Amino acid sequence: MTDDAPKMPTAAMIAIGDEILSGRTRDSNIYTLAQTLDERGVTLSEVRIVPDDREAIVNAVRTLSGRVDVLFTSGGIGPTHDDITAEAVAEAFGVKAPVRDDALAVLAEWYAKKNQEVTDARRRMARIPEGASLVPNSVSGAPGFRIENTFVFAGVPAIFEAMLGAVMDDLPKGERQAVYTVIGEGGESTIADGLVSLEKAMHGLKIGSYPGKTGKGGPLCIVCKSADEKVARQAALAVESLFRAQGVNPEMVEGYGPVRD
Amino acid sequence: MTDDAPKMPTAAMIAIGDEILSGRTRDSNIYTLAQTLDERGVTLSEVRIVPDDREAIVNAVRTLSGRVDVLFTSGGIGPTHDDITAEAVAEAFGVKAPVRDDALAVLAEWYAKKNQEVTDARRRMARIPEGASLVPNSVSGAPGFRIENTFVFAGVPAIFEAMLGAVMDDLPKGERQAVYTVIGEGGESTIADGLVSLEKAMHGLKIGSYPGKTGKGGPLCIVCKSADEKVARQAALAVESLFRAQGVNPEMVEGYGPVRD
Repeated sequence: MTDDAPKMPTAAMIAIGDEILSGRTRDSNIYTLAQTLDERGVTLSEVRIVPDDREAIVNAVRTLSGRVDVLFTSGGIGPTHDDITAEAVAEAFGVKAPVRDDALAVLAEWYAKKNQEVTDARRRMARIPEGASLVPNSVSGAPGFRIENTFVFAGVPAIFEAMLGAVMDDLPKGERQAVYTVIGEGGESTIADGLVSLEKAMHGLKIGSYPGKTGKGGPLCIVCKSADEKVARQAALAVESLFRAQGVNPEMVEGYGPVRD
Repeated sequence: MTDDAPKMPTAAMIAIGDEILSGRTRDSNIYTLAQTLDERGVTLSEVRIVPDDREAIVNAVRTLSGRVDVLFTSGGIGPTHDDITAEAVAEAFGVKAPVRDDALAVLAEWYAKKNQEVTDARRRMARIPEGASLVPNSVSGAPGFRIENTFVFAGVPAIFEAMLGAVMDDLPKGERQAVYTVIGEGGESTIADGLVSLEKAMHGLKIGSYPGKTGKGGPLCIVCKSADEKVARQAALAVESLFRAQGVNPEMVEGYGPVRD
């Protein structure tokens, strides 16, 4: 029952890059963003991973930017030929992405400090959609940008995190739900029936059941979420009882707990 | 230039689960599947992460199953109330998902070996869409299934991998492209212009440029891919020269190399 859940701002993300889809790279930006938004009370409602392909990026940006309060993209804004995100996002919003003087000034200052030139390849990183505002990059200089409700960040994890940190005050903020997690042992089917009854009985409660990653016993985490802190806590106490009835001695923690697999 | 790339079978994936979107869990199944498909010469063209929400699952399955040769889903086929994937996938294909005798028999045999009962919660795991074939689960018994071009697997990583392994012979297989990676140092903007010329000059070559995850120097990986092994190898040798012209001594490896961040 989530009818009474507070209205939370919504977000989506598009991770852009052939290297993720080919299995070369294991993405970490999705996990970073998901945790950051959860802490702010923002619901991440969908993530898409798309290749370095103009049409795929344009379609995903158009669809998702219209569906959520705030959209994030990662990847494809570097200096090489396969970096086409800026143009594709511009196209999605019906504008051009010229080399802009303000972005060029940022690059010029960054490379001047390193006694390096703004080469043709580096100039590519000053292509910013018309009307977009720049997002600073404290790691490697070349800026990200924001256009309408869409933030466009680099794919390199350290730069993604720096850009996310730089815009934190501009992001929507919702009411964070209270979360308690009960960590027990055993297969989830042993207490599943009890969880159904519990969720039905308590107004505004949402329960998630997450077995360990091996699938063979190990920690079973039951997550109790509610906008009402008391409801979440009382539900967790009830889950503790369900475990004890199975002869298991569970541990209750605030938040998702250290066991996340 | 990828015009001459061999026609490769295409795939998509839907990772289902509130726990991924809330940042509780860092998904690993996408990475597992991406690597497996790449090794088989199958192009993973899109991944979506959606919540445990009927409409979101139905829409994603309908859209993606019609767009690719083979679709995979992970998550939401366990015994608890938040496991709704079987019904949602059935709905996407216009059929019901009753508790099926063949699936029930699998569960009965599994739990009998452990001297356990098939409780009501466990019976939920025998809900399989009409017309689907079962996918064995060597880890925890409860089967996945295949309906039309869509494979529905568990989200627990060990079970996901077991199910993927079990259907391997049924998956499409394409011509695997040759991959060489040149690992050097420095910012990618220093050799970006050379990469553009190289990709233009060599027929059927695709180059990807991947800086390290810190964004501050460290290994820079240039990936050269082609259906023609000689083209990929010659391109990698040319990339080595680009690095050497910058005073960097690079390393060339077959495949994506050990540096994947």
